[in-house]
Amino acid sequence: MIKVAIIGGSGYTGGELIRLLANHPKVEISAVTSRQHQNIPIYKIHPHLREMELKFVDLKPSSVDADIVFTATPHGASMKIVPEFLELGSKVIDLSGDYRFRDFSVYEKWYGLDHTAPLNAVYGLPEIYREEIKGANLIANPGCFPTGGILATLPLSKKKIVDRVVLDSKTGVTGGGIKPSKSFHFPNISDNVNPYKITTHRHTAEIQQELNEFHKVKVSFTAHLVPVIRGILTTSHSFRMNDDLNLSNEELNKIYKKEYLNEPFVKVLEIGEIPRLSSVRGSNYVHIGGFEVDETGRIVVISAIDNLVKGASGQAIQNMNLMCGFEENESINHFGLHP
Amino acid sequence: MIKVAIIGGSGYTGGELIRLLANHPKVEISAVTSRQHQNIPIYKIHPHLREMELKFVDLKPSSVDADIVFTATPHGASMKIVPEFLELGSKVIDLSGDYRFRDFSVYEKWYGLDHTAPLNAVYGLPEIYREEIKGANLIANPGCFPTGGILATLPLSKKKIVDRVVLDSKTGVTGGGIKPSKSFHFPNISDNVNPYKITTHRHTAEIQQELNEFHKVKVSFTAHLVPVIRGILTTSHSFRMNDDLNLSNEELNKIYKKEYLNEPFVKVLEIGEIPRLSSVRGSNYVHIGGFEVDETGRIVVISAIDNLVKGASGQAIQNMNLMCGFEENESINHFGLHP
Amino acid sequence: MIKVAIIGGSGYTGGELIRLLANHPKVEISAVTSRQHQNIPIYKIHPHLREMELKFVDLKPSSVDADIVFTATPHGASMKIVPEFLELGSKVIDLSGDYRFRDFSVYEKWYGLDHTAPLNAVYGLPEIYREEIKGANLIANPGCFPTGGILATLPLSKKKIVDRVVLDSKTGVTGGGIKPSKSFHFPNISDNVNPYKITTHRHTAEIQQELNEFHKVKVSFTAHLVPVIRGILTTSHSFRMNDDLNLSNEELNKIYKKEYLNEPFVKVLEIGEIPRLSSVRGSNYVHIGGFEVDETGRIVVISAIDNLVKGASGQAIQNMNLMCGFEENESINHFGLHP
Amino acid sequence: MIKVAIIGGSGYTGGELIRLLANHPKVEISAVTSRQHQNIPIYKIHPHLREMELKFVDLKPSSVDADIVFTATPHGASMKIVPEFLELGSKVIDLSGDYRFRDFSVYEKWYGLDHTAPLNAVYGLPEIYREEIKGANLIANPGCFPTGGILATLPLSKKKIVDRVVLDSKTGVTGGGIKPSKSFHFPNISDNVNPYKITTHRHTAEIQQELNEFHKVKVSFTAHLVPVIRGILTTSHSFRMNDDLNLSNEELNKIYKKEYLNEPFVKVLEIGEIPRLSSVRGSNYVHIGGFEVDETGRIVVISAIDNLVKGASGQAIQNMNLMCGFEENESINHFGLHP
Repeated sequence: MIKVAIIGGSGYTGGELIRLLANHPKVEISAVTSRQHQNIPIYKIHPHLREMELKFVDLKPSSVDADIVFTATPHGASMKIVPEFLELGSKVIDLSGDYRFRDFSVYEKWYGLDHTAPLNAVYGLPEIYREEIKGANLIANPGCFPTGGILATLPLSKKKIVDRVVLDSKTGVTGGGIKPSKSFHFPNISDNVNPYKITTHRHTAEIQQELNEFHKVKVSFTAHLVPVIRGILTTSHSFRMNDDLNLSNEELNKIYKKEYLNEPFVKVLEIGEIPRLSSVRGSNYVHIGGFEVDETGRIVVISAIDNLVKGASGQAIQNMNLMCGFEENESINHFGLHP
Repeated sequence: MIKVAIIGGSGYTGGELIRLLANHPKVEISAVTSRQHQNIPIYKIHPHLREMELKFVDLKPSSVDADIVFTATPHGASMKIVPEFLELGSKVIDLSGDYRFRDFSVYEKWYGLDHTAPLNAVYGLPEIYREEIKGANLIANPGCFPTGGILATLPLSKKKIVDRVVLDSKTGVTGGGIKPSKSFHFPNISDNVNPYKITTHRHTAEIQQELNEFHKVKVSFTAHLVPVIRGILTTSHSFRMNDDLNLSNEELNKIYKKEYLNEPFVKVLEIGEIPRLSSVRGSNYVHIGGFEVDETGRIVVISAIDNLVKGASGQAIQNMNLMCGFEENESINHFGLHP
Repeated sequence: MIKVAIIGGSGYTGGELIRLLANHPKVEISAVTSRQHQNIPIYKIHPHLREMELKFVDLKPSSVDADIVFTATPHGASMKIVPEFLELGSKVIDLSGDYRFRDFSVYEKWYGLDHTAPLNAVYGLPEIYREEIKGANLIANPGCFPTGGILATLPLSKKKIVDRVVLDSKTGVTGGGIKPSKSFHFPNISDNVNPYKITTHRHTAEIQQELNEFHKVKVSFTAHLVPVIRGILTTSHSFRMNDDLNLSNEELNKIYKKEYLNEPFVKVLEIGEIPRLSSVRGSNYVHIGGFEVDETGRIVVISAIDNLVKGASGQAIQNMNLMCGFEENESINHFGLHP
Repeated sequence: MIKVAIIGGSGYTGGELIRLLANHPKVEISAVTSRQHQNIPIYKIHPHLREMELKFVDLKPSSVDADIVFTATPHGASMKIVPEFLELGSKVIDLSGDYRFRDFSVYEKWYGLDHTAPLNAVYGLPEIYREEIKGANLIANPGCFPTGGILATLPLSKKKIVDRVVLDSKTGVTGGGIKPSKSFHFPNISDNVNPYKITTHRHTAEIQQELNEFHKVKVSFTAHLVPVIRGILTTSHSFRMNDDLNLSNEELNKIYKKEYLNEPFVKVLEIGEIPRLSSVRGSNYVHIGGFEVDETGRIVVISAIDNLVKGASGQAIQNMNLMCGFEENESINHFGLHP
């Protein structure tokens, strides 16, 4: 039995951490913090967690008693508390962007902030860094778009087949957080499609970092808000380096099946099967499908994830399970909620 | 470890039974039948169940090996197979309307069918019939609207406070089943509200039967399709028998709290808290709230359920747990999926 | 050609007034005011009005040049400017609640405000007050729920058939205005139903006032937010005064057909036809249908309106047309947008 | 005053033709045909058209009295009737794919049908072929995706700036027609994203034909169903032929402004403004925006249309107006319905 604390538990990722950890047989939640909601039962903010007896608390790091600390804090805020938790002997899984970049100048460029506490962290995508995660003290939990975008394209980068990829993502609105704003006002989102940050989204740099670890690939990324609560569907359009390379749909599918053969959460679909968000809604699974090469040589691969689970809190728990030597899928092995 | 079979597993309630039973530690699914989809992997129909190795089979009752049989068959079809399963020694939980009426002439009137195989069954609403369920061989699993409507009004009938109730329900579209039709065509449902069967819905009779078990209450019921996938929110407007009776919001709330004190799945909210569908989405919980009496003496109580879980498959599993002596909430104790 | 001004043009009702007046052959928009957005092109706030060359202005009443002034200002704000516009010689159509009550103490009770400028106004529901509207200087444009609720029940009150009505309304989110809030945050509304102010909504008093003009009727009202952009569907459940009165569906339908025979915007459906929001989306029409009496004597009639058109700006223009002697349906005679 | 007939009026495009033509001052609808719904009032199928006195008829071409015939028939069906209407002296605007290809072998390849009645037609995109349309007897009304995709990319093809484009479209469900199917069943579409025909959509060939008229461009196209009723948002990702070419966002925007300067229905947004579906909902407008070039040289331009209006029936009326010498925007000059 380990103790975990959730720092910044009043947002959507905090709510998901609690929902998923509630049934974990080896975890006890010792604290869920929220400065704003101190002493309020968590179900006042997360109405589906009515059964939980927990209340939000407001604690200094030194008062937190936890083997694992999840920092579900905004970027910029994480860097101010992560070092102290590490010094106090906790392991930290940070859900913000603060520790995702191996080159901190990339962080400073895309986030427009000075990084005041650079530290070595492991990028918490188990499909690439499983072994490193097991021994890590600090995990930078991947962003939601990067999780879907990287997994949809990684095998093509590893195989050095493509040198340019356009990731066109359609995302649910919870990716924008729990705080109301004009952009997420129901009448502006429903029955509508809203592209945003069409060439300037921060997650572009994160995807570039990971895909370029294996092979030089030009990464372009555009996000679109669709009238969906949860989920990111990413259409990866990529282009062969060499126009002479002949790649059939079957070969394409085979490359992915091989790559993800032993992955517990990545499901590679058959040719002709198409991922959709409902298949993974509420779950930690990633569905990858599409696998078609068109007449112009464009390669299409599509991934579907739940942005709050595999794209955030579920993946954080997957990382925790690896770090603690638990079954990798403990408490995150349920199916998606379709329909 | 018991064996269960799901007869008619290609619809939404079949899919939910599989999803929920998949992690039940004391249950093995021995067969999921579908005439139409024989030999097809179940994930081809239920795309979120990709992990399950099961295929649909087409079996005669005598070839089914099961301690508990769930008949997720349409009304009219269930009565043709239920007797045989009982004779073969299985216990049956029927999700159709065929065995919900103690007076079969009521069934024949509202369903417009001759009942060819009347049998004694227990109405599977544990909040009323828990003890009877434990010893039953045949459970008539309640309808979705009756589950929400009865639970929202039962304490007022038991206390003989009201003699008339209007149940105005707003339901998700999965209540209409997996089969496409004009009524469930996306452009007809989205951004729309569609009332239907406004005074003639069959579930009216089922609600009448149960509420009148305690006290004579005139029951009116109207259903509305709203652009929601899952869930039924029922607004129970009821009227005091005696206009002189003074009933405060607090007294009203107290009556419900007392009634449902030990119920594992019924959560009685505080005054000022309002149920909503997302709080129970995907879960077996019922949230009951509202608890206001207006100036005209109308009493408002509101219930929220997931029509496919507490309104169908989750409740069926709750009944199974009771019949088999398992923990009542085994495999159905997870929280709702909010947001 | 008349000049009209829209005071408070940056909200949804302001946007609708502009959209609908843009093609009115006898109207010139002389000013659209907004303190907050002064000098900004209106299409920056109302992106569908890109063609309009108008900019928001910030004007004192005395600088407004208009035969008709639409005050699309919040309650409490209207009473501060309406008297001045009237003194300056403009006629005023007020879209707030400030002038809807003939008894100002009712206003003060339900709105919790002192009324600092009581004036005689005509309640702008042409189906009741057409002749009074023609000669009025000040119109109190009805609320959205009252428009749908009154029209669905009025004939039964006039005929003294019922003495109690429960109005259960399902409303689109634009009824809550253009300002983002937690209640209208997409993840809280989508795939959900949210009841609110279940016995305390201000519109209750407005409906009471008008229905009781003809006959004493106890009015109960509950509003529910559904995941819809525009539209209010109101289910009117009413009860006969006299249980012995026999009322067939056909007689019920006939009463409504007779009442609304010459109304240009009220369409009485046939028995068996059910109103739905999409039939009137974006239009000034009201569809009324249902017309069933159930076994308990409950009468069900259902109305569908677009809350921003017949429920606000379209009705305001209908009133303007009547006041100015224009064709009553000028510029508001287009059909709904289905699908 | 001209007479028009709508052949195949029971689908969505038929309904839109009627809605939009109803207020056209120079057009009389002489017949709306439907074999299936003969003699039924059109409002039974198109519930928003309740005011129209029209009934569906079933007529042979020789019995149709019309100056302009709109064939809103499926592909394969149009070619069987279009020649006869032309021989009878009517002009025809065909909304199917049957006459969109100048090379009929391309049609036969992509549609998998023999073309039994090839005829010269003008491709009815006024932004390219306005002058030809004016004198045409047979118009091939463009597909919905091609309308949005071509207009978003045309200036780059004309200027010979790009040689490869990926069009990633997000479409509303009405594009799939009025007929229910599993793909358009509400629970499969709502809160979901469904890619389809990811490299094999017929509209690819239509886009290729038009863009390649000006310059050789490799066209890739993928469609995604989003939970939207109407509208297509197309993200055009294109790539410069020459990596040395420096193209700023401002230059890009300028090229589009110049190209569409005098177009009545194409609105070129400013840099920083993003098109969205609601701005054009229900209207014939096209909004084009985005106009960003990213670090990898990818050019992003985004278009928004209503698939049933500019993508079908509105454009057909625009073509009719041109053919008959009416004002080009007669009866299609209303704004979008936002929110």
